[in-house]
Amino acid sequence: MVTTDSATHLRIDPARFWATIERSAEIGVGRPGGLRRLALTDADREMRDQLVSWAESARYQVRVDRVGNLFVRREGTDPSLPPVLIGSHLDTQVAGGRYDGIVGVLAGLEVLRSLDDHGAWPKRAIEVVSWTNEEGARFQPPMMASAAFAGLLPVEAVLASRDAAGVTVGEELERIGYAGRAPVGGEIDSYFELHIEQGPILDSAGIDVGIVTGTYSVHGMKVDIRGETAHTGPTYMRDRRNALVGAARLAVAVDDIGWRYAGTDGRSTVASVVAWPNTTGIISEWAQLALDVRHADPQVADEMLAEVEAAIPCVAEAANVDIEISSRYRFGDERFDEACIAVLRQAASTLALPTLDLPSVAGHDAYNLSHVAPTAMVFTPCTGGISHNEREHADLARTVPGVEVLLNAVRERASR
Amino acid sequence: MVTTDSATHLRIDPARFWATIERSAEIGVGRPGGLRRLALTDADREMRDQLVSWAESARYQVRVDRVGNLFVRREGTDPSLPPVLIGSHLDTQVAGGRYDGIVGVLAGLEVLRSLDDHGAWPKRAIEVVSWTNEEGARFQPPMMASAAFAGLLPVEAVLASRDAAGVTVGEELERIGYAGRAPVGGEIDSYFELHIEQGPILDSAGIDVGIVTGTYSVHGMKVDIRGETAHTGPTYMRDRRNALVGAARLAVAVDDIGWRYAGTDGRSTVASVVAWPNTTGIISEWAQLALDVRHADPQVADEMLAEVEAAIPCVAEAANVDIEISSRYRFGDERFDEACIAVLRQAASTLALPTLDLPSVAGHDAYNLSHVAPTAMVFTPCTGGISHNEREHADLARTVPGVEVLLNAVRERASR
Repeated sequence: MVTTDSATHLRIDPARFWATIERSAEIGVGRPGGLRRLALTDADREMRDQLVSWAESARYQVRVDRVGNLFVRREGTDPSLPPVLIGSHLDTQVAGGRYDGIVGVLAGLEVLRSLDDHGAWPKRAIEVVSWTNEEGARFQPPMMASAAFAGLLPVEAVLASRDAAGVTVGEELERIGYAGRAPVGGEIDSYFELHIEQGPILDSAGIDVGIVTGTYSVHGMKVDIRGETAHTGPTYMRDRRNALVGAARLAVAVDDIGWRYAGTDGRSTVASVVAWPNTTGIISEWAQLALDVRHADPQVADEMLAEVEAAIPCVAEAANVDIEISSRYRFGDERFDEACIAVLRQAASTLALPTLDLPSVAGHDAYNLSHVAPTAMVFTPCTGGISHNEREHADLARTVPGVEVLLNAVRERASR
Repeated sequence: MVTTDSATHLRIDPARFWATIERSAEIGVGRPGGLRRLALTDADREMRDQLVSWAESARYQVRVDRVGNLFVRREGTDPSLPPVLIGSHLDTQVAGGRYDGIVGVLAGLEVLRSLDDHGAWPKRAIEVVSWTNEEGARFQPPMMASAAFAGLLPVEAVLASRDAAGVTVGEELERIGYAGRAPVGGEIDSYFELHIEQGPILDSAGIDVGIVTGTYSVHGMKVDIRGETAHTGPTYMRDRRNALVGAARLAVAVDDIGWRYAGTDGRSTVASVVAWPNTTGIISEWAQLALDVRHADPQVADEMLAEVEAAIPCVAEAANVDIEISSRYRFGDERFDEACIAVLRQAASTLALPTLDLPSVAGHDAYNLSHVAPTAMVFTPCTGGISHNEREHADLARTVPGVEVLLNAVRERASR
């Protein structure tokens, strides 16, 4: 099992690694081929239990913090030094795949096991973390628990977040037995995250290792549209204040903005709409849109945001409604650490692996971690760039190189 | 209490009539000033119980049919003759007013009581009916129970209709004790319905009695929009198949059609949108719109429908989605009965009341009844035309004339 082709670079055990991915694919089965493992559900508990079981078999230490982040620690020769952290998430979207987030956590586990195989004991501890509720598919906001770790979101705000049924994160953590006692946060040396790209660039380039050198700037918001209830029949067009019409006109304006910037790979999304009463015979008085715009160039992302803001009064007038931005967020202005990126490049070079520099368009927990520690990300290919879909697919052969880059980079970083 | 100013025309007791409206306004209280009395809820039961109590106090016969339609019968001198039917509904929208439907049922009760006052015993029985679930706010379709009465919808389809929580009409009828044994349907002489106009015409004209001479032709449909889930970030604009964007583009197209025909009082409505997954981070693969177009001229309504149908493939291409009309309905091609209209006009003339001919733009149970019996409608004013809103308002003084026209017309018709 232990490969010893070189003293200077280590290999993983691909079959063992893939067996963990396949075991994960049995927990929270969704549509054929996919997973539906929403944060803090029974399926999430079962997956957490599995990770704990693997960790305990290898005698790693397990720790759970107050927001349910699950840490698996392999001790270093100098326990006084801050650890190197490897992380991602085990929750999925409602129509998720088997790889998004999961590959990153289980790559971390494989790194620990491979170090065991090789009897390698760096100075620093290495910890693997599974962050709670990265997806935001059940609780808002996404990436909440890594944000709490980085001090960007209060612990109490995370615990108080409610799902659509009104249940809180805190209640669900208690219910599934993962309301930990460890404090949220703590000093770390550095943070590494491996993730499937979720885009088509590596797949189409035929390169297996992506070095994430930049992020897309994302401006997101929720927008409230207010009109007035009225009968759908006798009310004249000029007297209507249909919040749904306002929401639709704004959604089209936002989509048009995405298309105007598509030439430079900008994009816009209308992700959800809710309305009230939203039923037959009555005009809706309220609607809410969730939307975002993204661009690799922060200045262009700002321009796109300005276009959304400019569209709002025009739409309000055209639809005879009031529109207000009720909440905003931005992410993706983070920059990853040059030293951490260099250690990834060095590992790839030692392994004779070609790499491709590329940006991350999606949000990742690594964005939050970059606020408190040197951080870098490795991308691995997914077929056709398909993600958040049950057809999401990753090949073992094209994933192993990224995991081995992670292994060697982390070993190097933990030896400092 | 009994006014005897003329042997040829009868009067109602306005204070007694309005007391029933005010009692109704205590049951299923909604927003300030309004009602939220959804079909087959506890509030609906309480209102039905109140109507039964009033009926039994006056020794009228009460009958409930299998779909919960509640009949109150005042016997005629020749019980073998088919009755004259007066009806409307006691259920409301989620943000309904105190008058929509309610005024019609309680005007019917006041007609029976006024005949008692005057010792008037026409040949035919007169029945007042409260139709189940006219609004369609809880169960689809609207006007379902009068449609079943008219043989336009199978009884089993009505009983099997489910609300958003999955509960059926049949289950709720059993629960509230109004799953009657009477067969649905039966021979009637004629049908009269009094209803607030729900539009501004009578109010602005200063005329209290509207004779409904026409209906708007309505084409309604549900439209399914199908795209594909994907990540809201890395997915290029050109690869997106966002069902919500398709729904928004179609909603705007439908609203634009309404505006193009607004000059001739055409109108269009987008009443609801649902989508899945409709959440953060993932593009929605499915959305459904409920929409309709209306025009007084059936040919123009057909043109408007054709424009909707023509917009669908354009929107599908623009949004890179598939769009399909999953269900359709039409109503409003009914014409009311000349003889019934004449008897209403004669009653108004006897009472020296000016009348205004006007169309009905909303749907009413009378449309269904017109398929099986001579039918006519009286409209009474509502302030500013506001309806399906807690600010819906009707004045007693401006409502009484319509009720008295109904009383005298029904007495005349029942004497044939």
